[in-house]
Amino acid sequence: MAADRRPVVDLTEAEARLKLPLKWGVPEGVLPAWVAEMDYAVDPVVLDALARMVADGITGYPLFGWDPELAESYAGWSARHFGWAPEPDAVHPVVDVTAGVRIAIDVFSEPGGVVFPIPGYNAHHGLASVTGREEVHLVVPASADRAEIDLDRLDRLFAEGARTLILTQPHNPWGRVFTRAELEGVRDVVVRHGARVVCDEIHAPLVLPGAEHVSYLSLEGTHDHAVAVVAASKAFNTAGLRCAQLVVPDAGARQRLLDQPMSRNESYSSAGIVAAKAAYDDGDPWLASLVERLDQQRTLLADLLATHLPEVRMRPLEATYLAWLDASAYGHDDAAAVALERGRVMVSAGTSYAPGAGSQVRLNIATSPQRLTEVVERLAKAWT
Amino acid sequence: MAADRRPVVDLTEAEARLKLPLKWGVPEGVLPAWVAEMDYAVDPVVLDALARMVADGITGYPLFGWDPELAESYAGWSARHFGWAPEPDAVHPVVDVTAGVRIAIDVFSEPGGVVFPIPGYNAHHGLASVTGREEVHLVVPASADRAEIDLDRLDRLFAEGARTLILTQPHNPWGRVFTRAELEGVRDVVVRHGARVVCDEIHAPLVLPGAEHVSYLSLEGTHDHAVAVVAASKAFNTAGLRCAQLVVPDAGARQRLLDQPMSRNESYSSAGIVAAKAAYDDGDPWLASLVERLDQQRTLLADLLATHLPEVRMRPLEATYLAWLDASAYGHDDAAAVALERGRVMVSAGTSYAPGAGSQVRLNIATSPQRLTEVVERLAKAWT
Repeated sequence: MAADRRPVVDLTEAEARLKLPLKWGVPEGVLPAWVAEMDYAVDPVVLDALARMVADGITGYPLFGWDPELAESYAGWSARHFGWAPEPDAVHPVVDVTAGVRIAIDVFSEPGGVVFPIPGYNAHHGLASVTGREEVHLVVPASADRAEIDLDRLDRLFAEGARTLILTQPHNPWGRVFTRAELEGVRDVVVRHGARVVCDEIHAPLVLPGAEHVSYLSLEGTHDHAVAVVAASKAFNTAGLRCAQLVVPDAGARQRLLDQPMSRNESYSSAGIVAAKAAYDDGDPWLASLVERLDQQRTLLADLLATHLPEVRMRPLEATYLAWLDASAYGHDDAAAVALERGRVMVSAGTSYAPGAGSQVRLNIATSPQRLTEVVERLAKAWT
Repeated sequence: MAADRRPVVDLTEAEARLKLPLKWGVPEGVLPAWVAEMDYAVDPVVLDALARMVADGITGYPLFGWDPELAESYAGWSARHFGWAPEPDAVHPVVDVTAGVRIAIDVFSEPGGVVFPIPGYNAHHGLASVTGREEVHLVVPASADRAEIDLDRLDRLFAEGARTLILTQPHNPWGRVFTRAELEGVRDVVVRHGARVVCDEIHAPLVLPGAEHVSYLSLEGTHDHAVAVVAASKAFNTAGLRCAQLVVPDAGARQRLLDQPMSRNESYSSAGIVAAKAAYDDGDPWLASLVERLDQQRTLLADLLATHLPEVRMRPLEATYLAWLDASAYGHDDAAAVALERGRVMVSAGTSYAPGAGSQVRLNIATSPQRLTEVVERLAKAWT
């Protein structure tokens, strides 16, 4: 490990049960590989910042609408990591990424369908309906060699009346990092229809070696029709503290956001802001170790699958710690249920991401090599 | 102070500027008496619980949808303080009270107007529109001797198509604690029209000596048409940590809440839950001191007004630490602006609570006797 690094520290099972009550709230003997949390200790710089906050007794309201320090922290992070940064004025706190997507649609989108590529992040299923809009699925077939957004189909959906695209990139659960060319293709279709994009970039810090994150907003000609929702919470395991950021590059749109009734966006937490600032300002030495570890886990997973589950189909994992496994070859209608019942391992059911995807599962690999090995061995025992 | 008490500790100005960045984010020399936060140190039992959480490294997702410990903690608190408790199954976490009111209307109310008594809590202005409904004001005239809900008017508004009442009780900014008879009167009108009530009871722990909080849900015949939104955050100064509770006494309605898309209600914070549990379980000895202090501040305010601002009209403050002052006699169209400019004291403008109420202000008395004295003296200098 380089000198400018802090290590990733694996949690014991007892530690994980204490620290991750949702993920590890499973029966004794079950290994959890489902919800997107990592079995690693939180970066000490983040915990130190939170400890200072508590020691200082800071539990009251955060600043309303815009936090200059948070905005600067994110802009600095974005410049260092993605080679592009919004102006700080563009960076607004929201309570979490899902709420940010909802706010963006509520405030900026015309009525009309919301295109949601499928398989898609479980918490975003039904989000369009919560904004009073129709959810329009753009389905990537399980048989496709590569998970891509079909631009012709996107064009057709906009022509048929959809007005907004939820673009998750890097994509969960596809594990894809879209190339600049792909993103430009999306942009061109969107612009042709005068539609809008809400770009969920929460996994951007977790792009693995070999791929590069291109912020949608870094493309020319996107600022008038797009916003991005970003966060430190996925990369730093602080999702329970509640702060994401809505990047609104257009000044008129920003004013529209600030002019909303308070109840539209006042729920972000002071603890979440503290954690985000610490991660953005001081988290790089830990994140570098994390990405290295996830890269190793990705390689290990490929080896384990080749050995124990050769019929499982998995596209290359370019980002995130969430692998999308197609286990159809083993013939189970509900592969996740079989995994739990016969293998005592909890993975996320494919049906949470795509209707009818019962023979697919999402597997969380952010754990120790030993535990991942045990998980895949158990899956093999269950499915074969 | 009794042996089973913990004291209320006043913050110095330097401490307050550190701990309360929103309230005290005022220019040097300005005294803030606006947003509903208290210039007192947070109860040590709450800070200890948060410090344990950070030391344990708990920053991940809270349990989804229902937290049995939080539910038990609130039920126990409610039984001890209000002589009535919901069953724990009824108590669901939400991110904050305003979000809870919004969720309740979105999920449970039919389309149709939302009756909002005026003056009304600033964050709830525009909330009806965020749910896609019309906001229907039920105005209490400034000249009324007592701030009351006019039941004939309420009846008429329901007859004209409104379907929901937002009932803030104790009321902010009226400072009223509604009597059982008043609440029964509201209930009878609501039941007659098959309408619904969303009861914001965040100030219930801050009922001052001489009044008694009656939970709306403790009345017979309310469970099929009402929910309550409750929280420890106002009484314990932890609003930035983000957890309130939505009490849903009807089992069918609870299921409907749990069946919503995840994006409807997943933003409550693990830190907020920890703070709420500590406050509910162990906060009584501090709260007793707080209520005593607020009672003293209320008396002090009355004395100060009699001496320095005899023409200010103020109805009895039965609960909360927020006094509603009618300064019309002094002839200022924007009494809050005059207070800031000439008096260097920031109070909340009446227009944030009621259209046209520029000669009224909301004054936060949760500070030291010395600071409250200085505030009123400055108001007198500014207004007279």
